[in-house]
Amino acid sequence: MDTEKLSAGICPVGRGLARAGDAWSMLILRDAGLGLTRFDDFQKSLGIAPNILTRRLATLVEAGMLERRRYSERPPRDAYVLTEAGRDYLPILQALGGWARKHFGEGAMSELVEAGTGRVVTPLVVDAETGAPLSDIAVTLRGPDDA
Amino acid sequence: MDTEKLSAGICPVGRGLARAGDAWSMLILRDAGLGLTRFDDFQKSLGIAPNILTRRLATLVEAGMLERRRYSERPPRDAYVLTEAGRDYLPILQALGGWARKHFGEGAMSELVEAGTGRVVTPLVVDAETGAPLSDIAVTLRGPDDA
Repeated sequence: MDTEKLSAGICPVGRGLARAGDAWSMLILRDAGLGLTRFDDFQKSLGIAPNILTRRLATLVEAGMLERRRYSERPPRDAYVLTEAGRDYLPILQALGGWARKHFGEGAMSELVEAGTGRVVTPLVVDAETGAPLSDIAVTLRGPDDA
Repeated sequence: MDTEKLSAGICPVGRGLARAGDAWSMLILRDAGLGLTRFDDFQKSLGIAPNILTRRLATLVEAGMLERRRYSERPPRDAYVLTEAGRDYLPILQALGGWARKHFGEGAMSELVEAGTGRVVTPLVVDAETGAPLSDIAVTLRGPDDA
């Protein structure tokens, strides 16, 4: 897959996927959203090989979704913290989780809840202007040359 | 990545990624949402190698997101049509596109518009109960054993 072409292409979905289009990256972002920042904690949570984790973290930093913050000089250690773009990505993962719960939710599963109250939260993708669920609206992509 | 473990695990995000957690699958679903159904059309749209496309289509059929419909007996040819779960997935892709437009939207890009009116549609992930943007709510995952 030519992610470089995709990342500057005309399709917004493709641009998004070029930056966070694999399951490991998305699971790292999920964990970062749950408060994890350190290499060892990501590794333990995900059971991911260290070399793959190193590569994915570097890619997410380069894509502007995580930023490195040095928390120890000896030995040199970086924490990985969500940027604004990274935080903004979390609702998409939450919507994905809601979708999986709806269609593939057999057996024991974690629930998305409001911190503090514990109220169960159900994500829904809507049209920001009207509040209508996007699934109820017939949409299409209009190319930049179609205007 | 142990997608089998992920696909029945307690994390809803993981379950979602186990079914549609790679960029090719998501681009195929995007194209299916835009009305493409035939192998050759997907291949032409995506510039994807035939063997990879065959595998991804089979995985999406097995995951219950696409269904095969035979449209020609000689030669045998199947169309691939979104299931309810597949259609329900499209708003997540649209949210992903909206996110990419917001953070990485330099230069020419397609726009998500309402079919018919051409009105630009901005996807937003909200709390279905209150309508509040999920990005404004502090949420966490509550495990099945934490109740």
